Amino acid sequence: MKNPKLTLVGAGPGDPELITLKGIKALEAADVVLYDALANDDLLAFAQNAKVVEYVGKRQGHHSLKQEVINETIVGYAWEFGHVVRLKGGDPFVFGRGFEELEFAAQFGIETTVVPGVSSATSLLGLLQIPITHRCVSRSFHVFSATTKDGELNEEILDSVYLSGTRVVLMGLHQLGKIAAHYQQNGLAKLPAVVIQNGSLENQKTAFGTMETIVEEVKKNQVQTPAIIVIGEVVNLKNRIPNGAEKLLVSDFS
Amino acid sequence: MKNPKLTLVGAGPGDPELITLKGIKALEAADVVLYDALANDDLLAFAQNAKVVEYVGKRQGHHSLKQEVINETIVGYAWEFGHVVRLKGGDPFVFGRGFEELEFAAQFGIETTVVPGVSSATSLLGLLQIPITHRCVSRSFHVFSATTKDGELNEEILDSVYLSGTRVVLMGLHQLGKIAAHYQQNGLAKLPAVVIQNGSLENQKTAFGTMETIVEEVKKNQVQTPAIIVIGEVVNLKNRIPNGAEKLLVSDFS
Repeated sequence: MKNPKLTLVGAGPGDPELITLKGIKALEAADVVLYDALANDDLLAFAQNAKVVEYVGKRQGHHSLKQEVINETIVGYAWEFGHVVRLKGGDPFVFGRGFEELEFAAQFGIETTVVPGVSSATSLLGLLQIPITHRCVSRSFHVFSATTKDGELNEEILDSVYLSGTRVVLMGLHQLGKIAAHYQQNGLAKLPAVVIQNGSLENQKTAFGTMETIVEEVKKNQVQTPAIIVIGEVVNLKNRIPNGAEKLLVSDFS
Repeated sequence: MKNPKLTLVGAGPGDPELITLKGIKALEAADVVLYDALANDDLLAFAQNAKVVEYVGKRQGHHSLKQEVINETIVGYAWEFGHVVRLKGGDPFVFGRGFEELEFAAQFGIETTVVPGVSSATSLLGLLQIPITHRCVSRSFHVFSATTKDGELNEEILDSVYLSGTRVVLMGLHQLGKIAAHYQQNGLAKLPAVVIQNGSLENQKTAFGTMETIVEEVKKNQVQTPAIIVIGEVVNLKNRIPNGAEKLLVSDFS
């Protein structure tokens, strides 16, 4: 009889070296790995002992597997094989629907564990050597999912014009026009912004601008999904580190 | 002649296994490591090749070294020894004053790199198996530093009564009374909250309550600094995973 277990593991923002040591150990101990589109495939090399390694990814607009099917797959595999590691891009609880999987498994008496990950929301700006918070510039940051579960714009993003910290919108590139127009209408046309596609990866692309120019900059730089939007005065700090934002990738220390 | 370099590394929230693989590689490659109070000492074991390993920690109310002195130490050591790794608790840019160090070093022509870390702001709730975001409960989260640089309450926290997502306050336990009173005055007495001390470590302590009871719960459970405060409906989800929040620590997979 197998001991059924589920561990949710955050894979980090993309660069496979941005997974945690605990995440690696979970993969090494896994009997089954179920992974997402946003989790880097290179990480699967750590799952040497797994009997099953399966893609259950969803991407915006391409729902390859329904959430209910993933939930049931987790439970089925846990009973059949033992320890299921669910590898999710970023952090499993930052808009990852991780709790739905955790709760479903727990209802069947399956032991659950969470290994947090580096969220793209907090890390991708930093990799450009731009701080998400900085004394006298930003004492808070605010992270939004772009849409409601019905696919509508999350209206909290419109209300974010009243905030003074750094705003981060995940998976919201298709809503950028609407957001930028709203910021302009509220007197914030000059507020700096950046859109980051494939953050932390070699094919990373960025578009810098203001709420007035960002839509045009995204087009000009051919920045596409998956991308995050960061809005706030901190974005201007990029000019204070020579070539910081152009370095793109963290050094390879190995 | 040494090649002077500075790498800011996020140590994660406390558990040494929550550092990233890239963070470990940076420590292994370091000639000098300068570390904080909130970075776990166990991580220093990775710095086998470092000639200098020094504590430059500051803790609330106990400023052991002024920021200017740390900045100058980084530059001096980089010139003398080469690669300086600055190991900071959590993520170096989430209220870590990391950018001040980066900018100071860059002014002297020192090459700079950033390795993001798992922020306590996004991860500590998750380790209790409570999601920081969850469909239909929270589509945003908001992270605040408790105080301004003059030690006053960050007033954005008072305005956070108008937000609908999850609110996280870092290093703000001494301001909890004021925050809770303000939430009560704004009709949010029943909003759930949790205070987490030493999150992810064996000596972790938690106090669960509402904005009406949280101050009393903190006292009753003897929860002290360093601690984070999380306020929002998601905190109630703890009741949906049997014993989730009581498990405290992530399993040891090794």
